[in-house]
This record gives sequence, C-alpha cells and structure tokens, in this order.
Amino acid sequence: MSALADRHTPFIFNEWYVAAFGADVGRSLLARTLLGQRVVLFRTTEGSPVAMEDRCPHRSYPLSLGRLDGDTIVCGYHGFRYDSRGDCIEVPAMPNCPRNIGTRAYPLAERGPLLWIWMGDPALADESLIEPMPWTTSSDWGATTMSYQLRASYVSLHENLLDTGHASFLHANTIGEPDYVRAPTQQEQSPGRFTLIRTISPTTLPPIFGRPTGLEGRPTITRIARSDFLSPALYVIATTLFDGALNPSNRPEFHLRVSHMPTPETQTSCHYFLHIARDFAPDDSDISSFISSRFSGAFKEDVDALNLIEEIYSRSDGDFYEMSVGSDSLTLAMRRYLKERAEKEALLRSQKALSP
Amino acid sequence: MSALADRHTPFIFNEWYVAAFGADVGRSLLARTLLGQRVVLFRTTEGSPVAMEDRCPHRSYPLSLGRLDGDTIVCGYHGFRYDSRGDCIEVPAMPNCPRNIGTRAYPLAERGPLLWIWMGDPALADESLIEPMPWTTSSDWGATTMSYQLRASYVSLHENLLDTGHASFLHANTIGEPDYVRAPTQQEQSPGRFTLIRTISPTTLPPIFGRPTGLEGRPTITRIARSDFLSPALYVIATTLFDGALNPSNRPEFHLRVSHMPTPETQTSCHYFLHIARDFAPDDSDISSFISSRFSGAFKEDVDALNLIEEIYSRSDGDFYEMSVGSDSLTLAMRRYLKERAEKEALLRSQKALSP
Amino acid sequence: MSALADRHTPFIFNEWYVAAFGADVGRSLLARTLLGQRVVLFRTTEGSPVAMEDRCPHRSYPLSLGRLDGDTIVCGYHGFRYDSRGDCIEVPAMPNCPRNIGTRAYPLAERGPLLWIWMGDPALADESLIEPMPWTTSSDWGATTMSYQLRASYVSLHENLLDTGHASFLHANTIGEPDYVRAPTQQEQSPGRFTLIRTISPTTLPPIFGRPTGLEGRPTITRIARSDFLSPALYVIATTLFDGALNPSNRPEFHLRVSHMPTPETQTSCHYFLHIARDFAPDDSDISSFISSRFSGAFKEDVDALNLIEEIYSRSDGDFYEMSVGSDSLTLAMRRYLKERAEKEALLRSQKALSP
Repeated sequence: MSALADRHTPFIFNEWYVAAFGADVGRSLLARTLLGQRVVLFRTTEGSPVAMEDRCPHRSYPLSLGRLDGDTIVCGYHGFRYDSRGDCIEVPAMPNCPRNIGTRAYPLAERGPLLWIWMGDPALADESLIEPMPWTTSSDWGATTMSYQLRASYVSLHENLLDTGHASFLHANTIGEPDYVRAPTQQEQSPGRFTLIRTISPTTLPPIFGRPTGLEGRPTITRIARSDFLSPALYVIATTLFDGALNPSNRPEFHLRVSHMPTPETQTSCHYFLHIARDFAPDDSDISSFISSRFSGAFKEDVDALNLIEEIYSRSDGDFYEMSVGSDSLTLAMRRYLKERAEKEALLRSQKALSP
Repeated sequence: MSALADRHTPFIFNEWYVAAFGADVGRSLLARTLLGQRVVLFRTTEGSPVAMEDRCPHRSYPLSLGRLDGDTIVCGYHGFRYDSRGDCIEVPAMPNCPRNIGTRAYPLAERGPLLWIWMGDPALADESLIEPMPWTTSSDWGATTMSYQLRASYVSLHENLLDTGHASFLHANTIGEPDYVRAPTQQEQSPGRFTLIRTISPTTLPPIFGRPTGLEGRPTITRIARSDFLSPALYVIATTLFDGALNPSNRPEFHLRVSHMPTPETQTSCHYFLHIARDFAPDDSDISSFISSRFSGAFKEDVDALNLIEEIYSRSDGDFYEMSVGSDSLTLAMRRYLKERAEKEALLRSQKALSP
Repeated sequence: MSALADRHTPFIFNEWYVAAFGADVGRSLLARTLLGQRVVLFRTTEGSPVAMEDRCPHRSYPLSLGRLDGDTIVCGYHGFRYDSRGDCIEVPAMPNCPRNIGTRAYPLAERGPLLWIWMGDPALADESLIEPMPWTTSSDWGATTMSYQLRASYVSLHENLLDTGHASFLHANTIGEPDYVRAPTQQEQSPGRFTLIRTISPTTLPPIFGRPTGLEGRPTITRIARSDFLSPALYVIATTLFDGALNPSNRPEFHLRVSHMPTPETQTSCHYFLHIARDFAPDDSDISSFISSRFSGAFKEDVDALNLIEEIYSRSDGDFYEMSVGSDSLTLAMRRYLKERAEKEALLRSQKALSP
C-alpha cells in the first residue's frame, strides 16, 4: 500500500497548477494557500498577474493585508515595500534599503480563463508543459466555471474522478444512472496519462444531460465518456452524446468537456476548480444556468463524500487499510504514478539541500 | 498512581456494554462510536438487531450513509453490498464478487429495553455474563430512560458514581441534602464488585424523592442507598425509602433502582445510558415525567462537572497529580481493578498479535 | 535567532505582573490563567485580595466553581474547604481533616487600580520591585483603563510596542501620521530597561491627540514620545505635546502616560492591561470617553495584527525565519534580555528540582 499516493504523500511541486480563475485576480490583494505556501495574487496597473509569497520576511505579517500601491505592495505592519518581483525596495525607518530582503515571486501563465502557477524549481517552469485546452479558449464552446474548497487530499479527488463507477451510487440522483456502472469500459495508459472510456448504449440520459441537449426521455441514446488523468493538476471528462436511433450521417452529436483542476492547499485540503464546456448552444444563458446549477449539485456530492472520508481518516489512529478489487486497477496505477513522481522530486530536493 | 485506571487506560473489550436502547434501533442506519470503533446498527426485516463496523473496507466510506436494502447495506460510494454478517456479496463493476472482503459484525444481545454489544474476542461472548436486571423487564416496575454524551473518560464517571459523598455538594440543589455526606457508610468488596451502603436516618427527603413517594416534608424518613459497581459497563444504585416513625410491620416502603451504564466512545468520551426504575405507581405518567425531569437535571450536574475536569486535564501538560484521602479507599480499589483488568487484556492482545 | 525571546521562550516567573484591575476582584470567585497557572481571585470579608491555584488538589475541580463562604472556598464537587492561605481545613466525609492537603496561594500587592501578583519563588516576592507609577495614583491625572485578550505571546506584544515606527502604517488611521516613522529617534539602554525617544516637530496631531488637547489642526506642534520597556510586565509611553509656535515660557504642555501591562496567559496568549493617564482636564468625562473610544480602537489594531501573525506561526511547520534590519536593534536587545532572563530562571528551577 505504501507504493500508492495518499494524504501523506509529499506535494509534486514541479507542475503547473491553477492558482485562480483569472477573473478573480485584479487590483486588490488576493490571499490563497497553494501547495502549503501562502501566496498573494494581484494584477499590475498594466494587467499582468503577479504571485508572491504572502509574508513579509521582516515580522511575518501577511502582505495581502498591506496596500497595493501602483505595482508595489506596502506591508501593513511596518511599511516595508516590495516590487512585483518580490524584492524589498524600501524600509521606512532607513535611508538606504537593505539588500537581499525579499519575498519569493512565482511564475504565472494565463491561458483563457485559467491562471496557472509554478511553485517548483523556477528553472523548470516551461510554459509549453501546460496542457492545451482549446475548449476553454474557443468561442465555439459555451462554458461555466465553479470551484470548491475540498477538505481532503487532492489524491482522493483524483481517485474519485478516475473511479467513474461511483456515478451510479454517489450520484444516483444527479449524473448517474443504474446502467452506468455496468457499461463496458476500456482503459489506456501512457506515461503519466490514465484514460478510461465508458460506452453506455442504449441508455436514457439523466436530466442533467438530457435537458440541455433535448435528448431527455429517449431510450436509444449512446453516451460515451472518456476520462483522462492528464497531470496532478488536470483531469478531463469528454462526453459524447447522440441518439443511436437516428441516421449516423446526419444525427446531431453533443460534446461536453468537464475539466477538473485540483490544486493542493494543504496535505489534506485542496482547491477544486471546474470548467464545464459544451459545443452546443454556446451562448444560451438558460442552458448555462441549468448546467451550472445541476453540475454544482453533483460535484458537491463528491466534495461531501471526500470531506467525510478525510474526517474519518484524520480521527483514526492511522492504521486504516484499504481493500482494492480488480476494477480499481486504473486508479491504483495512477496513485502509483503520483507516489513515484512525488518521491523522486522529494529525493531531488533533499539532495539539493545537502549539496555544497 | 499508575496503578489506578484513568483517561489513559486502554479499553476493556471483553465485556458486554450497552450499545443503544433497543427502541432507538430500527429500519434506518444508526451510526455510533463504541470503544473507539465506528459501528452501524439496524434491524433486519424480521426485527433482529445487527451491528457491524461502520466502514466500507474498500475506500472507507461510512456504511451508515449507504442504503438499507432488505437485510443488506449498499455502500453509498461505489455500491459494494454487505449482508448482516458483514460479508461483501456484490461489487457492481465485477461479475463475480471477490471473496474475503467484509466488515466486522459484532455479537448483540437484547434484554428488555437494553441492547448489549460485545466488542471483544467473539469466542468469549457469553450472554450469561450479562447481569440480570429484573427491574428493567418486570411490569412491577415503572421506568424512565435517558442518555448523555459525556466528554470525559468512563473511568471518571465510575469514580464519580461510587464516590457518593459528592451528592451533598455537586447535587446540593437536586439529589443531595447536607446530611447525606455525613451519614454512616458500609463497604463491601468481592472480585470485580464494589459496594457502598449509606443509611441516612432520620432525614428529610429532597423533593426529587419526597414528591413522587408522598414522603416530602416528613423529618422521620430513613433513606438507604446501596451503590453497586457491577462491571465496567454497569453501576446500580438501589434506594429504599420509608417513614421510620411508622409501624415497621405495615409501613409502605419505596424502592428505586437507578442503573448507570457507561459505554466508552473514545478514551475521553463516553455514552452514558440511564434507566430509572421504581416499584411504586409504575404506570403513573405524571410521576414518570417528574422523575425524568428532576433526575435528568441532577445527572446533568455530573456530566457538566466531569466534562469540565476532563477539559482541564486535556489542557494541562499531563503532570496532574491527585490527592486522595481516607474516604476515597473504595473508588481507588475500583480504579485499581479496572486498571489490572485492562492491562491483562492488553497484554493478551499483544501476545496474540505476536503469536504465529 | 535562538538568542532572542519568542513564543517558545519559558515564562519569567520572578516578576510582579498585573493579575487584574483591583475593581474586578470582589466577593465572587474570578478565574484567570496567569503564566500557565489557573488562578482564582477574590477578596476576604475585610477586603484583602486573595489569589490561589484554581484547582482542588483532590480531583481537580476548579475552586472558582465552588462557593465563597466567609474567607474560605468550599469546593463544588466533594466539599473540601480551603482557607485564604490555600490550606485545606475540612473534608466533609472525615472527622479529622488530613494535613498537608492544600492549594498554592500567591503573593499579591495592590497599588492604585492595579493588583499585582507574584507567581515565582515566594521568597523573592519583594514589593519594592514594583515600579512606582504616580500617574496611576495621583488625582492630578485623569485615567481610563481597558484590557484585551491577546492570542499571541507577550513577547510579540513587547516587540510591537518598542518598535514604534509601525504607528505610521498599522495605525495610519488612528495614532500614526506619515511623518512619525521618519522622525529622529534616540535610544537609551540600562540593564533591563530599553528606551526609545522620538521627537516629531513640527507636526500636525492626529485627532486622537489633537482633539482632547485642543491642538487639532495646528501645523506647528511638537510631539515627543518616550517609550520605556521597564519590565516583562510593564511598558510605558510618555507623550509630551505642545505648540512650538508659542512662547516656551508660558505655552501649555500636555502629558500622557500610557501604561501597557502584558501578563502571559499561555505561551501563545496574554492578558493585555492598559492604563491611559493624562495631566489635563483630569475630571472631564467627555475627554475620558473620547480617549477610551479612540485608544481602544488603535490598540485593537495591534491585537488584531499580533493575533494574525501568531495564527500564521502556529500553522507553519515551525521553520519560520525573520529578517531584521538596522532599525530593529533596540527590539532585538530587548528580546535578547528576555531570553537570557528566562533561561537563567529556567536553569535555576531545574537545578532546584535536582537538588536533594
């Protein structure tokens, strides 16, 4: 069991994570804990996003409680001033600012509605590693976003996501139908990527899918769900829906892309960002509201369940075992991958710390 | 002092404890932590009580949040199904249910209004060890029940119960009278049983006893209280009341049996079940209400005091001493007994764990 | 950094600390934790203040929940009775009170509105060590008092107090003006005393000083603030205000003495007593109200900031560093002094504990 990532596994720092929806970052100071670090976010007068450690190195007062002055932050306690690279450029009581006092700034990359942050080794912050997600940037797709604070490890969330069979039980009244768990599945693996494809056909759609597509009530639907674990920070479910009774050459097909973006906050909590895109009626605000309302209800079921299990774990003496069955093979492979990557990185960090 | 049981002493598992009043267990899933274990309770369609560990062994979701389907529980997360012996009999995504996945079931015994559970070695679960308590089953006795969640060790509760002198102070306005603590007492001990008999005569009864018996206000009452520690799970106070000024051959005598049944929840909390029986006016609902209301007020004083002391202990650095005086001899003997029994059992468990 | 006192530094016990404003101690039992000890305070029938450990040595019930009976306390649990020296003088169930059962009493000294307590070695409790503070006892001074519960170490409070430059930032809207931090300062040190004198001239007073003195709005004011760390339990800011444009020989001068009296409660919390004296309009109740309201707002800013920093520290893994600059030299000297004194005392305690 120790080969599997869990709530005790160190963070994977060398990865792009969603720090925030870009729309939530502006000309006020936004405090957020990411991968165990307190971070303050804002935009410069020209609109560039900035992220730095949310702590004045002098006496640890949160910079987010200071004042944004142009592109600088003035600490609210003793007035130390920091520029957008985190360098201290003024100490009020002193004629010359001491050198080498500064707080850490973090690389950011903005892609459509998402603001990605790199908390690891800055030398490795390669923006080309960010997954292209055209459905978040193209106007062919309508989108709604939401987010949750999960009081559980991001590892539990990834396992929950990849173990899609729970839809028939935990989501029995929202996303799932009884036939979902029994439908045939196909697995794919490549390094760092884990995919499950589930084809339910024929089926009747639950209202959450049936209503916005107009396919509600028909017993001849094909529902294909492709679930991709793409990185510790990203998991996407691509759903294809059509009426199998219609002529394949001209029947309408409906596509959804639900992007799940967990960003660890602490070992046992995480930010859970969601982006729900559809390639039909992209500008229909009624459909957007319906999707937003129904999906947020469904994902809340995951959040509640994972919070609860974490609470049970946290109150146990730590001797909790898990029993896995054959249908868990894909999630176990994913957790093995997270564990290996986290441990490799932790080893590298400790070697660096020891090197002269 | 280390020879005395306290909040750090391991649980005594090989004992029958009250899990619940039987009336509280039915066709819905009841979650309860007993001796550090999460337990789910329900009744089968035929009415038999069932207790099992409240955790799906797959991913630790509480079974109590699943669904009762006939005599089986279906886990609310991934739909694993368990029968009333705790055996897993269905995994939805798999054609054949894997063997040897199961959750632990616990022996239960129902006696009158009380549902007893055995959390220890199942081989030792001998129902004849349950104390016969005819006053809980015979229609000659009227009864009321109540329960509290105590945020203190069950050891503190037992010490409180056996140290009956506190009635004159902590219960000065409810059960106690100033003369209670000064009355002559007599002690009896046999293996695992500790008895204190207190005879207050003549005395005037406090309203809690005086009103329902009609003896209120008379200065010539004899009150005999026999307090018996019978097991870690059971303590009974038998009270006899009569007017000593009347002719012994035909004066009315009134008897009460107050059964105190602590069941440890965690090291520092316990369920506190109470059964208050009387052999007079058994069907008088006004007297039942009066007793229920007054006694619950009095026992709340114990609960509040013990909660408070536990809170003080928990915030101290653990270097708390206690000073005992001569009148503490019986409670010290009881705590010595609990400690010896707990340690003997713990030793046996560790030997078993080591044996091949 | 380890040479500086911080939240982990042991308490300094051999010192007079304010236990309470005398007005808050009377004929009811007042519970308060001081230097990690639970203390109960009351006055005898003749009005003398009494302080003793707030715990019955028998079963740890708080004496403060017992009953004050003349000059004795009767424990609310089993009725043990203690006199004002903390000696047990009655155990209800026993004809003779056992000897040597008692709870600790602490030396107290009342000076004007302040009740000082000595929690250390009683042999060293020399009342002449208490700082004379004539402005708390003379009728030439008008005074208001207030107190806060700080959820931070008293060390952080002392550092905050001595580092007066923060007034321009944390108190930008209350006590501070932008020119405050830039004004020339002068430092003085003598064993165990640390002084900072700041002269701001010419300046305009913030309303908190300007309004009660009638100097509001004038741009020609001289403000001299002398800040004295006098003991771990006492810090005084003496402020002198006058209009520099007036003739020195007959211009009015205004003086304030703000006494800050931190008494550690736990390692990371403290009682923060305040006494604000002025030598002008001593009996003007409008001015008293104005000062009380404005100053309590200003000091609340310190309390909020220190609470917040402590919360950040407590959630960190303990690897927090601090970066100090040249202007921190006086506070660092003060923290070095507290650390040395605490360690010297702790060493002495451990030697005593080892000695035969």
